[in-house]
Amino acid sequence: MTQPSSFLGYTCSLCGTQYAPHEVVYVCPRDGGNLDVNLDLAAIRRSPIHPATSATREPSLWRYLPLLPVADPGGNGTPLRAAGWTPLFSPPQLARRLGLPRLWIKDEGRNPTASFKDRASAVVVARAKEIIAPVLVTASTGNAGAALAGMAAAVGMRSMIFAPRTAPPAKVAQLLVYGAQVILVDGNYDSAFDLTVQAAQEYGWYCRNTGYNPFTVEGKKTAAYEIWETIYPQLTGLQHPLCIFISVGDGNIISGIHKGFKDLQALGWIDQMPRLFGVQSEGSAAIANAWKARSETIQPVESHTLADSISVDFPRDGIRAVRAAQQTGGAYLKVSDEAILKAIPALGSAGIFAEPAGAAAYAGLTSALDQGIVDSEDPILVINTGSGLKDVKAAMQSVRPAPIIEPTLIALRKHLEATR
Amino acid sequence: MTQPSSFLGYTCSLCGTQYAPHEVVYVCPRDGGNLDVNLDLAAIRRSPIHPATSATREPSLWRYLPLLPVADPGGNGTPLRAAGWTPLFSPPQLARRLGLPRLWIKDEGRNPTASFKDRASAVVVARAKEIIAPVLVTASTGNAGAALAGMAAAVGMRSMIFAPRTAPPAKVAQLLVYGAQVILVDGNYDSAFDLTVQAAQEYGWYCRNTGYNPFTVEGKKTAAYEIWETIYPQLTGLQHPLCIFISVGDGNIISGIHKGFKDLQALGWIDQMPRLFGVQSEGSAAIANAWKARSETIQPVESHTLADSISVDFPRDGIRAVRAAQQTGGAYLKVSDEAILKAIPALGSAGIFAEPAGAAAYAGLTSALDQGIVDSEDPILVINTGSGLKDVKAAMQSVRPAPIIEPTLIALRKHLEATR
Repeated sequence: MTQPSSFLGYTCSLCGTQYAPHEVVYVCPRDGGNLDVNLDLAAIRRSPIHPATSATREPSLWRYLPLLPVADPGGNGTPLRAAGWTPLFSPPQLARRLGLPRLWIKDEGRNPTASFKDRASAVVVARAKEIIAPVLVTASTGNAGAALAGMAAAVGMRSMIFAPRTAPPAKVAQLLVYGAQVILVDGNYDSAFDLTVQAAQEYGWYCRNTGYNPFTVEGKKTAAYEIWETIYPQLTGLQHPLCIFISVGDGNIISGIHKGFKDLQALGWIDQMPRLFGVQSEGSAAIANAWKARSETIQPVESHTLADSISVDFPRDGIRAVRAAQQTGGAYLKVSDEAILKAIPALGSAGIFAEPAGAAAYAGLTSALDQGIVDSEDPILVINTGSGLKDVKAAMQSVRPAPIIEPTLIALRKHLEATR
Repeated sequence: MTQPSSFLGYTCSLCGTQYAPHEVVYVCPRDGGNLDVNLDLAAIRRSPIHPATSATREPSLWRYLPLLPVADPGGNGTPLRAAGWTPLFSPPQLARRLGLPRLWIKDEGRNPTASFKDRASAVVVARAKEIIAPVLVTASTGNAGAALAGMAAAVGMRSMIFAPRTAPPAKVAQLLVYGAQVILVDGNYDSAFDLTVQAAQEYGWYCRNTGYNPFTVEGKKTAAYEIWETIYPQLTGLQHPLCIFISVGDGNIISGIHKGFKDLQALGWIDQMPRLFGVQSEGSAAIANAWKARSETIQPVESHTLADSISVDFPRDGIRAVRAAQQTGGAYLKVSDEAILKAIPALGSAGIFAEPAGAAAYAGLTSALDQGIVDSEDPILVINTGSGLKDVKAAMQSVRPAPIIEPTLIALRKHLEATR
């Protein structure tokens, strides 16, 4: 099943140095910059990837294999082959309420381990198979770890997850159920991150760390391809470009989506780039701050937000994330925890249950509408990055408790009359 | 978009009395028996439903609309249209470990609200639209309520959920996020059930209660159609029929799957019925007990099991559930909570995260293998009825806690050597 790969090498996003595929593994050895993967565009142009042929392609991110820097990972009939190709909704009530005739929501909570991170982990697992890395490792307090554990388990590979000892036991449970070897470190996320980097070198493990392994962006860019394949045909004739709202923590998802659209532009398959809007919690806004200061210097923050999937002190992919908004005529928005909590039942009212990070993107949209940054002429997409079942505690905070009554019709009638 | 419906009426599963569509709504007025929906098989035979034409059909249970007793419910672009057509896995490592060359797992946790119950609720919502019922109501402590709340929200309909006040706040949160009006009653599930029945009559609400509303089985039967469309083509030439393992609480899911295969048999589209194996927790085994006693009298139990989705004192669809195993050469199996907990990481090792009820079906399979009830010649399907994220507390009980180390390479080396 192995197909020839279109993977040519890497370019450092900071200094522009180019590397061959086997010269480097993670970040730029010169300056630590994130590496962009270079693809053989001429070869891709010859491949049968265009949507016209999509009827024969599988309902997962692997439909874009010719656009990925990996060979076919195998794993047919496993959850690895079920990552991506997530549902795209166009909820009529929300659209009416917001006055947006063209509103879509892409629900990444429907991925195998219930978050966007499955895209990255699926492609990193494929890369690990290719370079014959026996063990995958990552630092994570949540979705990235679950995604790596789940995708590795799917194809019988070993995974090691390092998390701070303060990680919620409920989040750790999912990793353990997938059979990952979980090690809690007596320190914060950064110390877990540093230890995985050292351990990967020491033991020959392949490190998936977000904003460190260049293949995470390659996995995440597949969301852009899906948006292109499903939404772009509906934009024909519109003057306004698509506006995409994406919650941002370490910056890797927005960088990935940007990369996907840059690929499509370089291939000549789109005329118009979408505008990318990054949404951060105001308590964890290192990238939004840099964007506002028109700077590529990311100042760390002391993060405080209930949206734990985007709670980041030191974003590992901040510079590319700033550029994603800058280069597309987008923007960054900061939203409060209160606004995030309000967005959970707003999305819920359309039958979409989002975790706080996913709801943040919707809160960003409402804020952008209030400020006139986007308007009803704009076609708009909100990406929900994870299932609300990932953080039921936050969901509980987002709603008012249910009343308790006697189990009688009389008590019910009284209650209904009182609350009418 | 409305299509002509093939809905002819009902037959009582106990006394055999037939009713026209508008004569009854819920159970048989004579004896309270569950009603089976009668379909116009001749009309269905003329419809273009056969898998040969499937390329044009949507990736949801609505691909089987001509086999359902409802018209097109609308709701395009909403989660209502994303229910069903769940992933079918054939995990190679599990298959090897169990010595089963033909093993499939159907992951119903990938439904919009993360359980099998979305199938029932989607079709009940379609029925409610058809009979112009403004409000849907159900008694539920969990998945059924979430499914009704989510499917109703998707198309802008109101839902009321009645639950015992002891329902876990985390489960109630999902209902509230979807905008359901949740009312906790100071009583048990049965008193919530009775109150919904009275309230539905009093206020003209449409009652979804499982084992009471005949359309839940019609929704659930779509899983059988999917099994037929995806697995049956792979069974050609095999002597042994497919064995399907299904966790059983109130008995409505196994009855629904049985109904689906009976439809297919009546249509002449399958030669061989699958064998249906119901799996109950030994602490909640009212239906398994009746099956063992070769009786259709279901004796209530005082249920005690951690698998809350199948924890049922008085099964509302017990008789049809007994028949599902009896009439297909299947059986009932009882599994301990300990075996259920062991099954969670077993499925997890294949990248599938199941709630206890879903894992119970897998535990039933291992028990059936141990007892020689099925063997390696049999093609086998296990249905995971819900996502493990629905019950993280149980997941935590199913695994050993992760170790804590200092964030240094030395501490890591020591730990790895000690646990080698």
